[in-house]
Amino acid sequence: MTTLAIVGATGAVGSVMIDIIDARETVPWSEIRLIASPRSAGKRLTVRGQEIEVIALSEEAFDGVDIAMFDVPDEVSATWAPVAAARGAIAVDNSGAFRMDPDVPLVVPEVNAQAAHTRPKGIVSNPNCTTLSMMAAIGALHRAFGLTELVVASYQAASGAGQEGIDRLQAEVSAVAGKDVGHRAGDVREALSAAGLPAESPFPAPLALNVVPWAGSWRDGGWSSEELKVRNESRKILGIDDLKVSATCVRVPVVTTHALAVHATFASPVEVETARQVFASQPSIVVLDEPREGRFPTPADVVGEDPTYVGRIRQALDFPNTLDFFVCGDNLRKGAALNTYEIAEELVRP
Amino acid sequence: MTTLAIVGATGAVGSVMIDIIDARETVPWSEIRLIASPRSAGKRLTVRGQEIEVIALSEEAFDGVDIAMFDVPDEVSATWAPVAAARGAIAVDNSGAFRMDPDVPLVVPEVNAQAAHTRPKGIVSNPNCTTLSMMAAIGALHRAFGLTELVVASYQAASGAGQEGIDRLQAEVSAVAGKDVGHRAGDVREALSAAGLPAESPFPAPLALNVVPWAGSWRDGGWSSEELKVRNESRKILGIDDLKVSATCVRVPVVTTHALAVHATFASPVEVETARQVFASQPSIVVLDEPREGRFPTPADVVGEDPTYVGRIRQALDFPNTLDFFVCGDNLRKGAALNTYEIAEELVRP
Repeated sequence: MTTLAIVGATGAVGSVMIDIIDARETVPWSEIRLIASPRSAGKRLTVRGQEIEVIALSEEAFDGVDIAMFDVPDEVSATWAPVAAARGAIAVDNSGAFRMDPDVPLVVPEVNAQAAHTRPKGIVSNPNCTTLSMMAAIGALHRAFGLTELVVASYQAASGAGQEGIDRLQAEVSAVAGKDVGHRAGDVREALSAAGLPAESPFPAPLALNVVPWAGSWRDGGWSSEELKVRNESRKILGIDDLKVSATCVRVPVVTTHALAVHATFASPVEVETARQVFASQPSIVVLDEPREGRFPTPADVVGEDPTYVGRIRQALDFPNTLDFFVCGDNLRKGAALNTYEIAEELVRP
Repeated sequence: MTTLAIVGATGAVGSVMIDIIDARETVPWSEIRLIASPRSAGKRLTVRGQEIEVIALSEEAFDGVDIAMFDVPDEVSATWAPVAAARGAIAVDNSGAFRMDPDVPLVVPEVNAQAAHTRPKGIVSNPNCTTLSMMAAIGALHRAFGLTELVVASYQAASGAGQEGIDRLQAEVSAVAGKDVGHRAGDVREALSAAGLPAESPFPAPLALNVVPWAGSWRDGGWSSEELKVRNESRKILGIDDLKVSATCVRVPVVTTHALAVHATFASPVEVETARQVFASQPSIVVLDEPREGRFPTPADVVGEDPTYVGRIRQALDFPNTLDFFVCGDNLRKGAALNTYEIAEELVRP
């Protein structure tokens, strides 16, 4: 008798969690409990053919729960994940509240599954979606060659900013469509304004026909919180305290799937062919790398897919022991719901 | 009496060349001659208030020409730039035909103006637009700190593929606008197909609501020609034969202005404040770097502008003597027409 709770069941990531559970051949859960804010309580959702009523978040909601997956804002997790743990559940949290807490493991099952089994606070954290989108690929290379340096530039989707990010991008695309804009400074902004879009946006600049080199909040030295997450979470997941990392995080007008251009340096010599074999041996990685035939990963072709897609694998011409490659991962699946659920599965593996 | 010819006067870059000449307070030319393919001959264009008839490309078209700016396909330049030179003109060529020829200087006036004055073949080359979009910024830092390594990822605009690139992106944006696509692999492709867009495209994958990690043609080791241009042209312009470079070139759904995430390592220690001063001392660089106030360069805000815009300047946390920054440059202006015209001005500077 094992009970799984989904906290934030009615949100964008919560819905993907339910899709993933629906698609599994078998599940180890005797009960699935759906929890959300009081506003959503009473809604009925179907999970594996069974209609389930959403209940409001409360201390009692966790009674009898073995594993509670949280996809809620940081401050909600900060309060409620410890409550779930105190009631005897293991909280698997997809917020930023606990990721860098030394008493909370940060887990990507393909990379450090064993870490999930030491959890002094009863909480396991799921990494940030940008880190996660590349981590299966990076982890596999690290095991083979010993990672020492990472320089990454991201191409991040609007859905990283939630449903309002998706809605805003789609409204902006409609506002610029059929208009000959993008030729003069200011005319994209004018088109959005002429279409009546509010100046208030989840993004700090227009995203349609544009890219925005900012995600998250400001940190010392001019870094964005997103860029520091890529650095600090990569170090923690891989267990490399002195891993050298520089990240530049840029939002692009894509609905879903984060992409990253990765320049990775290793302790051991590495060749494209051996890297390809390392990737091919991983069940959660797909290599798509025949650019002469137009085969490489793009976000629009990877969205909705579970694996991490890798392509454009090249040996750096001027840097020893270094590979350049391009990686795409669905930020709502492997980048959020899927990895969280895979941690839950790891926790109950017989 | 100095005569300037524009070869390819009716093309996208040719039109920008005429805009730039129109906007100059004074010009050193006593005659401006417009040259294009026979198909465009006879058209009349206005330059600095004067109507000029476009003449067809021929040997005689270069008689009396001092400087001929070429913006035509590689194979047209390969044939006709030497013809212009043989007739006594200096050819300033924006194609890829001569860039890596050791007897042809590759010039960015802010960086290596003096190189334009040694030209055994009577030809001066203008760099590729991606290289040019960052070169003013990179060149200024190199003079101050001594560049040793460059890792760059590009966010390249559709107009890098010419007017047909712009037309295709706009048609794709119209095809996906108002439709809830981008959530499932294949649905962007389906939307383009449903809108009747031909499968044939200047881009090897859908560009609307997507990014495409490929520009140019295939080269050994899986590199794209665009990525090798960034490496080889940077080395030649800066005069650093052993500069270490890794580039990943990615097309994004932006009409005009290329952006690059740059990770640059120097021989000397470098701090953000001194880098900012170096940039600020350059007339052709604008620093826009207050992310807390939403101030950073984005392509849509830089299009149509002459300067190179730099922002997100950070000292790399884990790499000594290294800066990370984001740079935007209009690929049709500084990336093509403007730099070509600045070379022409340099050649006749008294």
